[in-house]
Amino acid sequence: MSSDAYPSMPQWLRQRALLTPDRLAMETAHEELSFKQLYARARQAAGGLRDAGVCCGDHVASLQGNTLDCAVTVYALMLLGAVMVPLNTRLSPMELAGQINESSSRILISDRDNAATADQAVTGADCAIIDVAALTQTAALFDDHEAEIRLTDPCTVIFTSGTTGRPKGVVLTYGNHWWNANGSLINLGLQQSDMWLCCVPLFHVSGLSILMKSIIYGMPVYLMKKFDPEQVNQLLMNGKATHISVVASMLRRMMAITGPNSYPSSLRCILLGGGPVPTALLQSCLDQQMPIYQTYGMSETASQAVTLPPEYMRKKSGSAGKPLFPLQIRIEADGRTAMPNEPGDILIKGLTVFSHYLRNKEATAAAFEGDWFRSGDIGYLDEDGFLFVLDRRKDLIISGGENVYPAEVESVLNGCEEIERAGVIGIPDQEWGRVPVAFVSLNEGAYLSEAELITTCKTQLAAYKVPKRIFVLDELPENASHKLLRRNLYAIYEKMTHEHY
Amino acid sequence: MSSDAYPSMPQWLRQRALLTPDRLAMETAHEELSFKQLYARARQAAGGLRDAGVCCGDHVASLQGNTLDCAVTVYALMLLGAVMVPLNTRLSPMELAGQINESSSRILISDRDNAATADQAVTGADCAIIDVAALTQTAALFDDHEAEIRLTDPCTVIFTSGTTGRPKGVVLTYGNHWWNANGSLINLGLQQSDMWLCCVPLFHVSGLSILMKSIIYGMPVYLMKKFDPEQVNQLLMNGKATHISVVASMLRRMMAITGPNSYPSSLRCILLGGGPVPTALLQSCLDQQMPIYQTYGMSETASQAVTLPPEYMRKKSGSAGKPLFPLQIRIEADGRTAMPNEPGDILIKGLTVFSHYLRNKEATAAAFEGDWFRSGDIGYLDEDGFLFVLDRRKDLIISGGENVYPAEVESVLNGCEEIERAGVIGIPDQEWGRVPVAFVSLNEGAYLSEAELITTCKTQLAAYKVPKRIFVLDELPENASHKLLRRNLYAIYEKMTHEHY
Repeated sequence: MSSDAYPSMPQWLRQRALLTPDRLAMETAHEELSFKQLYARARQAAGGLRDAGVCCGDHVASLQGNTLDCAVTVYALMLLGAVMVPLNTRLSPMELAGQINESSSRILISDRDNAATADQAVTGADCAIIDVAALTQTAALFDDHEAEIRLTDPCTVIFTSGTTGRPKGVVLTYGNHWWNANGSLINLGLQQSDMWLCCVPLFHVSGLSILMKSIIYGMPVYLMKKFDPEQVNQLLMNGKATHISVVASMLRRMMAITGPNSYPSSLRCILLGGGPVPTALLQSCLDQQMPIYQTYGMSETASQAVTLPPEYMRKKSGSAGKPLFPLQIRIEADGRTAMPNEPGDILIKGLTVFSHYLRNKEATAAAFEGDWFRSGDIGYLDEDGFLFVLDRRKDLIISGGENVYPAEVESVLNGCEEIERAGVIGIPDQEWGRVPVAFVSLNEGAYLSEAELITTCKTQLAAYKVPKRIFVLDELPENASHKLLRRNLYAIYEKMTHEHY
Repeated sequence: MSSDAYPSMPQWLRQRALLTPDRLAMETAHEELSFKQLYARARQAAGGLRDAGVCCGDHVASLQGNTLDCAVTVYALMLLGAVMVPLNTRLSPMELAGQINESSSRILISDRDNAATADQAVTGADCAIIDVAALTQTAALFDDHEAEIRLTDPCTVIFTSGTTGRPKGVVLTYGNHWWNANGSLINLGLQQSDMWLCCVPLFHVSGLSILMKSIIYGMPVYLMKKFDPEQVNQLLMNGKATHISVVASMLRRMMAITGPNSYPSSLRCILLGGGPVPTALLQSCLDQQMPIYQTYGMSETASQAVTLPPEYMRKKSGSAGKPLFPLQIRIEADGRTAMPNEPGDILIKGLTVFSHYLRNKEATAAAFEGDWFRSGDIGYLDEDGFLFVLDRRKDLIISGGENVYPAEVESVLNGCEEIERAGVIGIPDQEWGRVPVAFVSLNEGAYLSEAELITTCKTQLAAYKVPKRIFVLDELPENASHKLLRRNLYAIYEKMTHEHY
């Protein structure tokens, strides 16, 4: 590597197809593809995208379910050197339009299931829709003969809700994805029989990271269109997969229907992320000696950043574990490194930490302190170096693995002319971990029913962000300078519903 | 990673000791160390080296056998940010002095076994000897609290013989070692039960790379002081190790004494490198269904660069396989990329390729064509992308895994005042693959017996470089411009010995 400190690598899928062409790459309920076939499919899709005008460096949005076509799209954009902007299919057309606009995507790849939403999302925008099914029908194979990547190049932009309500585009480089795949590999090992069951969304970093691992490791992925606990159980019981990524609500639904059967030993890793795990659920997993790897991570760390291996589940119950090899964790209290067991801000440093927030210098600057990323979460390291996460990012509501920021929901409610002020909090929920609940005060003389308010939210917000209840109060609790006191809303909620938690 | 495209990593051993402190790190016939203990030992040795004046960036030579102390030295120097220059213990004092001088090493770490040679090697040089046994006796632990590494920093300098006779110092960065470990990991997988038997020298990249893998993977190494086929077989038969690195001559000696027993299935990888493998040996391995991974690599690629997995041993017999994931191979014929099956120069590109030759701009420039490293070897890629190595670097004699360049031996012979001219070639040998044989013409009136000539060589050359036979000719074959015609020496050798090959 004489001429550059950070030289290029061969295109990952191309290299994988060269190294292990005949190995199984991807399986769905209907189809199986080897790496050679997957590569051919991706080259064809890349040909179609090139014909549609996609160039190296372009941002290209995608609104697709968990299909083979979607996976092929991910790889095709990588072959072209284009940057994929995967959009959450649960978002409202208005939210989607915002992210298409924010990312300057001039093409939106959509599947049939999301075609109607896609149409609404691009209304009035300079963005053409491409039907993913049409992509591979006519185009000549894209010639990627000399295609290489640089680890410093951007690969994907994933939008996350922000504390201010404005979604932030997390720019992840090829290097970020590479180091995540490699850190995870060192952490979990790799065997020839490994197969990862992907039933988390490909538009989230959790799903995307499985696609990256697949072509880097040469490991097949079983891709499910939609999470279905019965189907997942059936696959796992049949020894179909060795690894699965889940969030707590998925795992609970799976375990609710396993009956007395425990999963076979072929299942060697259940990667459990996406927020806090209820103690009762963890206890059941312990009782059944399930290979649970609790993890802590986020889009900004290209997925899994900290992991607790099963052998520590009992001894370090509640811990998220230790960082992946290329990462470091620091706890900061009062501007200094905290002592063991002393809570403080969780900072993360290392090669999987994202590059920057797209066109948002302010948010980027606020997120970094030198090379250290301020996660916004609170936690501590115990005397053995295990991380315990105490509080998620201030006010963040994690609902079924999805992030909901009160500010985002509040800003929609505050947009109603009848509403004077709105406040949103997260309430514990058996099914989803937490769900948003809103409180509003109305302008003088105005009237709106709870149902009407909820309908309004539904037109503008993803279903999981819509408050499950909206209470009308005479006035919201505020401090002397009239700032909303969200924490007081919890007591009000308890009083009004007589629910204790 | 906001501030730098290539940020730092935690010190590997420190991170490993944090992540898996109690896991077994290293075992010898006499001792076992966990990663925590290994780390403590390395910090103590680093403390001793710091007290002896070793600073970050210094080149520090090492003349040690395969002992735990030697491994600790490797890690200690890494903690200090010093660059290790491991010296081949088989070299003559004169050769060693040359490499100490070439690398500006002002400290030579030696063990008892090599103390006498070390003394001779530093005579007259500005280089102090440190006895490795004394290193850990008094020093305070080195505080590496904030120690990090950059992948672009130099880590080791390994000398290889050069075509011109002048040894070249191959500068390998942390990144080179990292990418080799990771490429190998993707290639071979990783299981919790893995343990690598190291009976190749730690002063070669093959041994060094095992030490790197150990702390990156969290994998224990069984370190043998000296290769002993019986002992190795015993360890393998007892299921002690899952992986072993060997060269052909070692493997043949092992297999000669296994009798009818085949190795247990716990042995899942025999990494076979260091030059061509005789067909008969490969056939025996095939017959016994041994998990042979043939490899092609060199110091300049931080060890293993191309690997053939066992499932292709029959179908692609004689092939070195396909490149590690972060590497690419190109065959160049007549200045263009060769067609499949067309032989040409083997060029290698990627993240494990060395940085440069130490203080040797000319050799570095000659070795690189952009990012592509000219291996100097000849070979071809078949239609499936498998590499077949046809000829090793021009004139290179690989003897028992060690490189011998004719030019180096010739220059010693040419230094004798009785000798007019010398020519050296490599002759096939049952035991070592090839051995050097010399031809000399003497000055008028001079006389030297073969025994005298060999004795002269022994004082200046490592034993494996000393010609097994030295023939005195009236004159050596030369071309019109009086250049030595080495290839004609083969015919002369055949004629003189009646040996055919």
